[in-house]
Amino acid sequence: MKTLNIIKLGGDVVDDVNRRHAVFASLRSLLNAAEQCVLVHGGGKVATELSAELGVQTRMLEGRRLTDAATLRVVTMTYAGLINKQLVAELQAMGVNALGLCGVDGNAMTAHKREHATIDYGFVGDIDAVNDKLFDSLLDAGLMPVLAPLTHNGKGQLLNTNADTIAAAVAMSMRTQRHVRVLLLMDKAGVLRDVEDESSVMSTLSHEEYKALRSSGHIAKGMIAKLDNAFVLADAGVQVHVCSWRDLSSGTLIRGQVGPL
Amino acid sequence: MKTLNIIKLGGDVVDDVNRRHAVFASLRSLLNAAEQCVLVHGGGKVATELSAELGVQTRMLEGRRLTDAATLRVVTMTYAGLINKQLVAELQAMGVNALGLCGVDGNAMTAHKREHATIDYGFVGDIDAVNDKLFDSLLDAGLMPVLAPLTHNGKGQLLNTNADTIAAAVAMSMRTQRHVRVLLLMDKAGVLRDVEDESSVMSTLSHEEYKALRSSGHIAKGMIAKLDNAFVLADAGVQVHVCSWRDLSSGTLIRGQVGPL
Repeated sequence: MKTLNIIKLGGDVVDDVNRRHAVFASLRSLLNAAEQCVLVHGGGKVATELSAELGVQTRMLEGRRLTDAATLRVVTMTYAGLINKQLVAELQAMGVNALGLCGVDGNAMTAHKREHATIDYGFVGDIDAVNDKLFDSLLDAGLMPVLAPLTHNGKGQLLNTNADTIAAAVAMSMRTQRHVRVLLLMDKAGVLRDVEDESSVMSTLSHEEYKALRSSGHIAKGMIAKLDNAFVLADAGVQVHVCSWRDLSSGTLIRGQVGPL
Repeated sequence: MKTLNIIKLGGDVVDDVNRRHAVFASLRSLLNAAEQCVLVHGGGKVATELSAELGVQTRMLEGRRLTDAATLRVVTMTYAGLINKQLVAELQAMGVNALGLCGVDGNAMTAHKREHATIDYGFVGDIDAVNDKLFDSLLDAGLMPVLAPLTHNGKGQLLNTNADTIAAAVAMSMRTQRHVRVLLLMDKAGVLRDVEDESSVMSTLSHEEYKALRSSGHIAKGMIAKLDNAFVLADAGVQVHVCSWRDLSSGTLIRGQVGPL
């Protein structure tokens, strides 16, 4: 069974050209290896900056961006346009045959608009299906898919979708055909026992430890969505590693209930 | 030999959602046919609007956009992001399995930065190579490539490239393996003998007629780049048709020196 590395680059990792160069230098051996990779990127900081330039108000709720029509325009331009194409250009310059896409391209990921009893998330999509045949054919053609965090509803509507959720959905869909590993890369060194202390990285994280850190308020809001997704994957037997882009060999391995440990 | 239709949608054809719906309704039978298609789109009007919103000055020279760093950011966001993904979403909603890309994706088109003795075009690319293997593998996987008018230099630099030129380069590259037809779709009905009179469409245009219309000033600046490209193709034996998106069966057939006529 082939190995597939699904690498999520957080918005804090891709927002700046110098940072990106350092990240790709750190990932070089992994990206140039014979193993197949899918990259998934965020871009929230760049979207917030463009929103400010255009006079579009940024409204966040528990780490999620409320996406009205003006915000959807901004994220479509920044995620699928600016960031995706810059990343792909930099990967091509490294000799990596990257191809940028979002959920609408080749019908890669379909979703429905999130319905919520009290909150209007706007044009935010919850994923219904991943087109694993498309990923198969791109990977087997020697291409590295680079996914921008947008999906569509199949009726012409683009939807903003969390990048960690996309990485998880692709992993779940591809795991029957490949040995899937998920790397969630951040600026921080992994899951920290003490959020103020970069040296307090936990080498593994179990359900029980996660619950305890949440209830004591030690895990920040942005991390909750990431780790919730990570535990779904780990419970399904996918190896999930939360670490700094600077050092892929350290960081935190998520210990699922049916995990590789 | 398979037939490949390369359809160029001008910036005036893709700038508005209602217009796009009408265009795709008109193209429906062609896009849903068994013949393979590549779409190439412009987006100049949308780029000019976003430039104005962001306080970026638009400078045009003979129909070409001078592309400083701020303008490159704008066109990357509008061409590869907003317009490309909206077009692909609308095509997917029609049941057409479109996949949006620009020249950097899968190394589709490499280019070099234009050097000119007196004019600084900025980040404008002249195409060096088209990756026909990539187009082959996408088309044979049942995907319809939708090309945004950007290329790259292989060293990490995105470059702004004229969409008519891209359509021509893809046609030249693919013509050895497929029977290639190029459709240059505009809002106007074709090449007009009198630019003020929509009923003066020329059913064919020869080199001699083109020269005469140019020297008498009857052909507008934006059309010159389009028709120069068209004659290169027609001379190479590619069927080139310049027409309105409203009626693909009328318009102007370009009569090359070694053409299909």
